[in-house]
Amino acid sequence: MNTIGNIFRLTTAGESHGPAMTGIIDGMPAGVTVSPEMIALEMSRRRPGSSANVSQRNEKDEVTILSGIYNGVTTGAPIAFTISNDDARSEDYEHLRDVYRPSHADFTYQAKYGIRDHRGGGRASARETALRVVAGVFAMAALESKGISVGAYTGRIGNVKLENYTFRGDMEAVYNNPMRCPDEVKAAEMERLVQHVRQAGDTVGGIVHGVIQGLPVGLGEPIYDKFQAMLARAMMSINAAKGFDYGMGFDGVCRLGSEMNDAFVRTPEGRISTLTNHSGGIQGGITNGRAVTFRVAFKPVATLMREVTGIDSKGRPVIISAQGRHDTCVVPRAVAVVRAMAAITALDALLMARSAVL
Amino acid sequence: MNTIGNIFRLTTAGESHGPAMTGIIDGMPAGVTVSPEMIALEMSRRRPGSSANVSQRNEKDEVTILSGIYNGVTTGAPIAFTISNDDARSEDYEHLRDVYRPSHADFTYQAKYGIRDHRGGGRASARETALRVVAGVFAMAALESKGISVGAYTGRIGNVKLENYTFRGDMEAVYNNPMRCPDEVKAAEMERLVQHVRQAGDTVGGIVHGVIQGLPVGLGEPIYDKFQAMLARAMMSINAAKGFDYGMGFDGVCRLGSEMNDAFVRTPEGRISTLTNHSGGIQGGITNGRAVTFRVAFKPVATLMREVTGIDSKGRPVIISAQGRHDTCVVPRAVAVVRAMAAITALDALLMARSAVL
Amino acid sequence: MNTIGNIFRLTTAGESHGPAMTGIIDGMPAGVTVSPEMIALEMSRRRPGSSANVSQRNEKDEVTILSGIYNGVTTGAPIAFTISNDDARSEDYEHLRDVYRPSHADFTYQAKYGIRDHRGGGRASARETALRVVAGVFAMAALESKGISVGAYTGRIGNVKLENYTFRGDMEAVYNNPMRCPDEVKAAEMERLVQHVRQAGDTVGGIVHGVIQGLPVGLGEPIYDKFQAMLARAMMSINAAKGFDYGMGFDGVCRLGSEMNDAFVRTPEGRISTLTNHSGGIQGGITNGRAVTFRVAFKPVATLMREVTGIDSKGRPVIISAQGRHDTCVVPRAVAVVRAMAAITALDALLMARSAVL
Amino acid sequence: MNTIGNIFRLTTAGESHGPAMTGIIDGMPAGVTVSPEMIALEMSRRRPGSSANVSQRNEKDEVTILSGIYNGVTTGAPIAFTISNDDARSEDYEHLRDVYRPSHADFTYQAKYGIRDHRGGGRASARETALRVVAGVFAMAALESKGISVGAYTGRIGNVKLENYTFRGDMEAVYNNPMRCPDEVKAAEMERLVQHVRQAGDTVGGIVHGVIQGLPVGLGEPIYDKFQAMLARAMMSINAAKGFDYGMGFDGVCRLGSEMNDAFVRTPEGRISTLTNHSGGIQGGITNGRAVTFRVAFKPVATLMREVTGIDSKGRPVIISAQGRHDTCVVPRAVAVVRAMAAITALDALLMARSAVL
Repeated sequence: MNTIGNIFRLTTAGESHGPAMTGIIDGMPAGVTVSPEMIALEMSRRRPGSSANVSQRNEKDEVTILSGIYNGVTTGAPIAFTISNDDARSEDYEHLRDVYRPSHADFTYQAKYGIRDHRGGGRASARETALRVVAGVFAMAALESKGISVGAYTGRIGNVKLENYTFRGDMEAVYNNPMRCPDEVKAAEMERLVQHVRQAGDTVGGIVHGVIQGLPVGLGEPIYDKFQAMLARAMMSINAAKGFDYGMGFDGVCRLGSEMNDAFVRTPEGRISTLTNHSGGIQGGITNGRAVTFRVAFKPVATLMREVTGIDSKGRPVIISAQGRHDTCVVPRAVAVVRAMAAITALDALLMARSAVL
Repeated sequence: MNTIGNIFRLTTAGESHGPAMTGIIDGMPAGVTVSPEMIALEMSRRRPGSSANVSQRNEKDEVTILSGIYNGVTTGAPIAFTISNDDARSEDYEHLRDVYRPSHADFTYQAKYGIRDHRGGGRASARETALRVVAGVFAMAALESKGISVGAYTGRIGNVKLENYTFRGDMEAVYNNPMRCPDEVKAAEMERLVQHVRQAGDTVGGIVHGVIQGLPVGLGEPIYDKFQAMLARAMMSINAAKGFDYGMGFDGVCRLGSEMNDAFVRTPEGRISTLTNHSGGIQGGITNGRAVTFRVAFKPVATLMREVTGIDSKGRPVIISAQGRHDTCVVPRAVAVVRAMAAITALDALLMARSAVL
Repeated sequence: MNTIGNIFRLTTAGESHGPAMTGIIDGMPAGVTVSPEMIALEMSRRRPGSSANVSQRNEKDEVTILSGIYNGVTTGAPIAFTISNDDARSEDYEHLRDVYRPSHADFTYQAKYGIRDHRGGGRASARETALRVVAGVFAMAALESKGISVGAYTGRIGNVKLENYTFRGDMEAVYNNPMRCPDEVKAAEMERLVQHVRQAGDTVGGIVHGVIQGLPVGLGEPIYDKFQAMLARAMMSINAAKGFDYGMGFDGVCRLGSEMNDAFVRTPEGRISTLTNHSGGIQGGITNGRAVTFRVAFKPVATLMREVTGIDSKGRPVIISAQGRHDTCVVPRAVAVVRAMAAITALDALLMARSAVL
Repeated sequence: MNTIGNIFRLTTAGESHGPAMTGIIDGMPAGVTVSPEMIALEMSRRRPGSSANVSQRNEKDEVTILSGIYNGVTTGAPIAFTISNDDARSEDYEHLRDVYRPSHADFTYQAKYGIRDHRGGGRASARETALRVVAGVFAMAALESKGISVGAYTGRIGNVKLENYTFRGDMEAVYNNPMRCPDEVKAAEMERLVQHVRQAGDTVGGIVHGVIQGLPVGLGEPIYDKFQAMLARAMMSINAAKGFDYGMGFDGVCRLGSEMNDAFVRTPEGRISTLTNHSGGIQGGITNGRAVTFRVAFKPVATLMREVTGIDSKGRPVIISAQGRHDTCVVPRAVAVVRAMAAITALDALLMARSAVL
């Protein structure tokens, strides 16, 4: 329920306005170096407040590691960590105690559990994704020692999108601008769009692209733990995610098979590879050695900076003015989360694949 | 790996050209009536040979139940069942013993396991999905006793698509034509397209739509077992599936939040519902009582009825002429599989949700 | 529920008097040779009818492999198999349709599920353990390729027990007599006891000892998947098992720490080992390279060959005369099952342990 | 690995001498009241320092709840909590940095992970069990609302044991003395034994008895999640546990079936029950409504208060003088842990059992 992964597993807890968010990483291989700086860097990439366009909540997001590391190296023991909720202003949410905001989880949580922590969205808040970013740092450190790198970037916000673009893995270019878009021209265009939407008190959605490079052939477990099935589950567990595809994905449905097949080639080193990568690096649920490419669609966030009509628990309409700090577009911040979830999935698949042969 | 589900679980085994496909359903609640006729009916809906457009393999698909039912009623014990592979013509695949077909799982299976049953795609064959349809019948029987129905239909093949169409749950209209499209005019158009593509020795993809109606509020487990995350995993585990979205999905990324929010209403019976359903029946990972709507994108199948170039294990190019029996478009047959996987996911979520309160 | 294991997993289905017992083994590493003869041999060691003392049910126990093996070698795909119930005489159980036998699972199954297949104990029958023996053959084949062997033998029946005995792994001596006791003198004594008890229409219990040799250092996952915890669960899932201990176990509770500690020694090859093995091959949940030694206690079986008083579903007392074929002592037959479950547990632990370091 | 449970799940992290121990409870039903006082009370029952006989480490064991409770009531969200390691004196362990103590986990952890936190036993320390006690408080609160109570007590230390004793559930009598033995005379005798052993610089083992009362008929999942199998796994995961049995257990192996069968009776209220309870409250893996009774054997702890010979990583013998604070007998402190693990197992089984019928 609050755990993801088979061998490399992340379990999370914590509400948006509780004392702290808590995560436990289990199954982290021993002997991997992870420093506070590596964690702080990745956290800063997800941080709200990095742009006028996203939430103004000013969390320091300091991560405290409570176990599983000795002399800077993982020990194989589970890694517990917390992130304090220092800047929580619960009073912003007092007026929502008995109110369900439209297209939020207020109503469903209340109906499911009969009780809910209404402050800041409680457990349903995207603040939970900060924990995923920490786990992603550990996963990425392990993957990098195997020559695997994970990238993600904003490919579309509203109608502004990258076209005929090939990502070469340059994450510096991604983190170089607040839109997390590696094309500077498009990034500027996206930023104008977001400011425009923000001024109108509205919100807008977009698409994050992900690329995993350097994966060996053979990751992914038939039949129900296919690499893409695990990846889809990981991505669709992110707040506001509404769709996932990989390779040619939804764009491939109107193509012919003869256009889509990836012809085999023999590399100069004698390995078998493919000329094109329409398949997105996976065949039959198992990685084929090419880059795994995928997309995640995010909806416009539900909280508008204008009056909206909610409903209270008695079914009476209630006018709501958003008083917290909210993103106009969640996509730039989701980039770090998509990257983390891809790393978590890939490391788990790498560990699982070791059991294919003795 | 070969199991899906938390409480209601399906485990499958079997290769395309082995003696039989085998499934075990665990966690099926006791006391549900499931008859051989119910199974045979659903199997016929997936059956190859039902149209000139799909594979000519002529399997009777007779399902033998080996346990878990007593006097026509489930006992709570696991349900084992087999489907014989009577019409397997392994000699059709002899020429592929040492050859990897492009965009198939031949190469990845060989690389992962160091050995593979090459006949008919072995474990990677879509024949495995027949077992899912059987499990789906059990899940649907349980769901129906709770007023929940699961529908699926072809929404698009190539560029022929349903537009401004609302599905009302009429599965008879779906199964009425070989395209599994509830709109007869569009179905005829799709059929012409498929025949055209088939004559060209090519293949084409499409989209299956799914709708789950009657779900109570409260299904889906935060955070990583959100309803949509479990559904995405189930769908992305289907052969040839390349994408998944729900609600407005990928089409919602360029919309504004103000257009997308679903305003609450109070129903005549006093329940809280929503006016629109852009959210696709889920908020914060938990069902909200509206229909869960989703889409699954399928690629054009990789096997073309023309010569293609593969590669052998030494890396030498090999000309391959498809000799087995193959679908031109997998979408019509996938409708029954999508329906089954949706039912399996929904029943599992229903059983999980019972633990939210004591 | 009906599955055991994390990576190497066995799922079983089937009732005593249904058409067949079915098992699916998932996570079996590819490339291991397993022949029908290996399976038949191990099945014969568990077979009822091998002695006057055990059940006279005359099953051929022929195992049909339905998948996962190609040219005699495992492929990494799941292995489905069935065992037919040819000699089921359901009419023997007709008088028990509405009756609960004392110390059987009749009442609890009926109460839990509201329905039950009363014939031969249905799902609760020890016939399910035949499937475990098949899975054990696969596990043992994999383990043997790594130099690991699994042994088990009868250490006690009633008050006849081995004393000051050290098992050296000679399974031939174990299977040499119907009591499955490697000491011939004690075996004869046990057989006389069982015959005596049988003539009195009574039953008797005993203890099976298990020994796993050749395990590398490092198997077992802290904290909750300690090697002994996984082994205990596997053993306590066997029908009629009432207790488990390992190393000095229950006998160690009245010993002093100074007597129990295992002093370290350096082997001639330079490895670190221990002089004694009071710990039973495990420290802190992780194997230490010494033999893992354990015991499983079995109760006298509940079905007596004399009149007993049961109760019907209305709560009325009913006199029952056992009419099926029943063991006087389950211990000799349990030896093969204990061995199989130990092998299943050890292989799973071996595969899990591969993730400790990258 | 570091998680136990199917629906009600505990995940733990933390080393003995790290900054804090951390736990996350997932699957806790919403709406249950748990107060800091309830937690503090149970923690005090496990606390070291409560007697001259056990470890003198003086931890306050203050538990900080970080999530999952709102206004004193569980919300269904995961409950994260920490316990600080205030009194850790890591310098006591400096001499053990490169040394393996006999019958400890030093060697096996080092061999498995290639690295280890040697301070205080690191992850292998029994300090981890403090987290289990916290989770047990939550489980007990849920169980109590269903009329289920969990008891545990010291039944034996060394050769001093309760005989012909029936526990009636009086936990006050248990916690009334430092031996956690409800019979005051025996408790005094046990205390004298422990003091005697302590003065000799030695240690001694014993047996904890557990009793779960008020369980409904029907808990436990055939086949591999039988109630006793889950309970055995939970108990055998406790540090120093060497054996588990239930009902008549090991003592029943030399009894006849005719002595052991539990005759059915109809209670005055019309329910079906049994006259005796040799079965220990479970039939066929499913609870039968009688008390579940079980025992857990604990070895004498390995750390002696005298010089012992260990080995260093080069295989050279090393004389070790224990300098930390250590228990002479772990049994009295284990009582609270056994109780907690029994509660965790029972609540998980209760939640699982809800899926048996729709």
